[in-house]
Amino acid sequence: MSQIQQSFQVQFSYNILFTENLFAPENTTLITFLNNFGNHYGANQFRKKILFVIDEGVAENHQYLQEAIKNYFANQEEIELVADILVLPGGEQVKNDEIYLAQTLRAIDTYGIDRHSFVAAIGGGAFLDMTGYASAIAHRGVKHIRIPTTVLSQNDSGVGVKNGVNYFGKKNFLGTFAPPVAVFNDSTFLKTLSDRDWRSGIAEAVKVALIKDLAFFEWLENKSVLLAHRDEESMNEQIFRCAELHVQHISSGDPFESGSARPLDFGHWAAHKLEYLTNFEIRHGEAVAIGIALDCAYSFLKGMISEDALDRILLVLENLGFDLYHPALAENDKINLWKGLNEFREHLGGRLTITLLEGLGKGIEVHEIDFELVKQAVDYLEKRS
Amino acid sequence: MSQIQQSFQVQFSYNILFTENLFAPENTTLITFLNNFGNHYGANQFRKKILFVIDEGVAENHQYLQEAIKNYFANQEEIELVADILVLPGGEQVKNDEIYLAQTLRAIDTYGIDRHSFVAAIGGGAFLDMTGYASAIAHRGVKHIRIPTTVLSQNDSGVGVKNGVNYFGKKNFLGTFAPPVAVFNDSTFLKTLSDRDWRSGIAEAVKVALIKDLAFFEWLENKSVLLAHRDEESMNEQIFRCAELHVQHISSGDPFESGSARPLDFGHWAAHKLEYLTNFEIRHGEAVAIGIALDCAYSFLKGMISEDALDRILLVLENLGFDLYHPALAENDKINLWKGLNEFREHLGGRLTITLLEGLGKGIEVHEIDFELVKQAVDYLEKRS
Repeated sequence: MSQIQQSFQVQFSYNILFTENLFAPENTTLITFLNNFGNHYGANQFRKKILFVIDEGVAENHQYLQEAIKNYFANQEEIELVADILVLPGGEQVKNDEIYLAQTLRAIDTYGIDRHSFVAAIGGGAFLDMTGYASAIAHRGVKHIRIPTTVLSQNDSGVGVKNGVNYFGKKNFLGTFAPPVAVFNDSTFLKTLSDRDWRSGIAEAVKVALIKDLAFFEWLENKSVLLAHRDEESMNEQIFRCAELHVQHISSGDPFESGSARPLDFGHWAAHKLEYLTNFEIRHGEAVAIGIALDCAYSFLKGMISEDALDRILLVLENLGFDLYHPALAENDKINLWKGLNEFREHLGGRLTITLLEGLGKGIEVHEIDFELVKQAVDYLEKRS
Repeated sequence: MSQIQQSFQVQFSYNILFTENLFAPENTTLITFLNNFGNHYGANQFRKKILFVIDEGVAENHQYLQEAIKNYFANQEEIELVADILVLPGGEQVKNDEIYLAQTLRAIDTYGIDRHSFVAAIGGGAFLDMTGYASAIAHRGVKHIRIPTTVLSQNDSGVGVKNGVNYFGKKNFLGTFAPPVAVFNDSTFLKTLSDRDWRSGIAEAVKVALIKDLAFFEWLENKSVLLAHRDEESMNEQIFRCAELHVQHISSGDPFESGSARPLDFGHWAAHKLEYLTNFEIRHGEAVAIGIALDCAYSFLKGMISEDALDRILLVLENLGFDLYHPALAENDKINLWKGLNEFREHLGGRLTITLLEGLGKGIEVHEIDFELVKQAVDYLEKRS
């Protein structure tokens, strides 16, 4: 038997640019990026195109936005804004109903967006998941620009490399790993968030601080009350640091997740299940806060962290305004929660891998969970709430 | 304005293994690969799963195949063959009708194929395109094994990194770049090919030889009559060398095609159009042979290669049994062909990039085509035919 060995590396690079008023005429961040990206019009006799896809909720909160985009691109020589801006629903709905994916693909086809042109998406995490997926599969990948509008998407999902839609009623059943060509974090979009959405995304910062960075956790302890009171400077600092940790994690590890380890899923196994059990009535970040509380309580009951450390964690979450308990955790004699643990294993594939804490800022992977202790952790949180 | 820079490399490796009678009980090629890939059962407490998807035409020509697969996996400890083998149509049909993609995704879901399990596809190039796409998007990528059954897929598309399905009536509108984890080229499948399919795939060998490897072209000149008469040893040698050149091209260049250059598309712009104009009545390889003849005639008329070189090329194609002309080339005063050139540019994105010849074994990219000369090249081929 003979064989041929194939082996190659592919380089992926993109920047996350922090700005405000991205589409103000005097803000050149976006146009500078576009003009410098890839080939130039003059040398290559073609103009790059850009299609905007906007989250309906964002369009409603920012009535000026579509007009501002049109003005911004009105006199650009190197790049052509296509005739229409596509506005679609945000939230999990846009990932659940395949009509929105089909509409995005249709627009990519209609406006002739090719592999050298751009789809720029403005919206929350779920919205960017769907548009990122459409961009990744059309023509084997058109260039995708992310403009996340929520805390959660600016500090976490929006700066990463995953996309996806739900299928067969399963979260992210379809998706790819496909880095964007750039991410623009515009703080202007945060001003119109509801208090719930403002708070919700901070859960991911607590998560990444707990598993990776004691100093950042202590910073969050100090700033938790300010953050809860919508202090913008603290928020921008939180987003920058959390995004930075997220980005470092991706590039230093296993970017396309060929192995089983997913430390950034700390607190997420219970969170995913809670979202489904509450029919998505609680926000992802709210579910993650409870999931973190649960896994920290478990870590304490397992003797891995002290009760003092646990108390500091729960206090930060409380100061941020999160509930640490939801009755759905205990539903059906906690059997639903047990099912969630199994579904998480199935989704990861292979054997169970859960991240717990062995200290503040120090995550550790385990492959076995004592479900009796999980039940006690639920009771612990119920008692505290 | 502040920014975070993200940059990482992802390593992709896979082997193309050449064998015969892949599912004979004594042939350990496949099971050795599977047992050694990734984690082990004992250490990780889970068994990898494998789902087979088979091209209907192959299943009909190899009645024993499904039974042989079941026997092959009957007593394996490390890996579990799932309960059913999925049989779907082959050819362009499986890429045109999305029901087959949906059926493949459904099977992946039903049988719990996760990111550590395998989808093994047995079939021709189009079949592997569809199954590869399904495997790439399910759970952001389950492990895909390709078992190509035609000359074309064993020497060319099957060993590469692309997949896709047709959408909006456009070839490969949806797809990704997603390397398989292994390719098994089993020469047994070639024995049952029709003469047309046997011959058809050799066009890709002529193509890659012409743009990259004079020695391989001269080898093809010497073997063309033997190959046309179904000499198996020559065929196996042709497939190995062509696959090797294809694999080298991918790893030494731009594997996921972030730029515009696609030298392996030599002869393909006219071929794609011919397939559509003839409603896929001519095989891809037959269309490629005509496309090569056309671009070589153009290269001669443009003064880039000698008439002697052109004659050697056309003679090889003729000896292999290919027609060098099809009336559809001249249809509608050749306007249809002109449209094909434009569609090719659109599909690539950006500016036109066409590979021509500046010598035997030496391709060169050009960005302008003189369509009057293309018309003359069509007439040249018509006269010779």
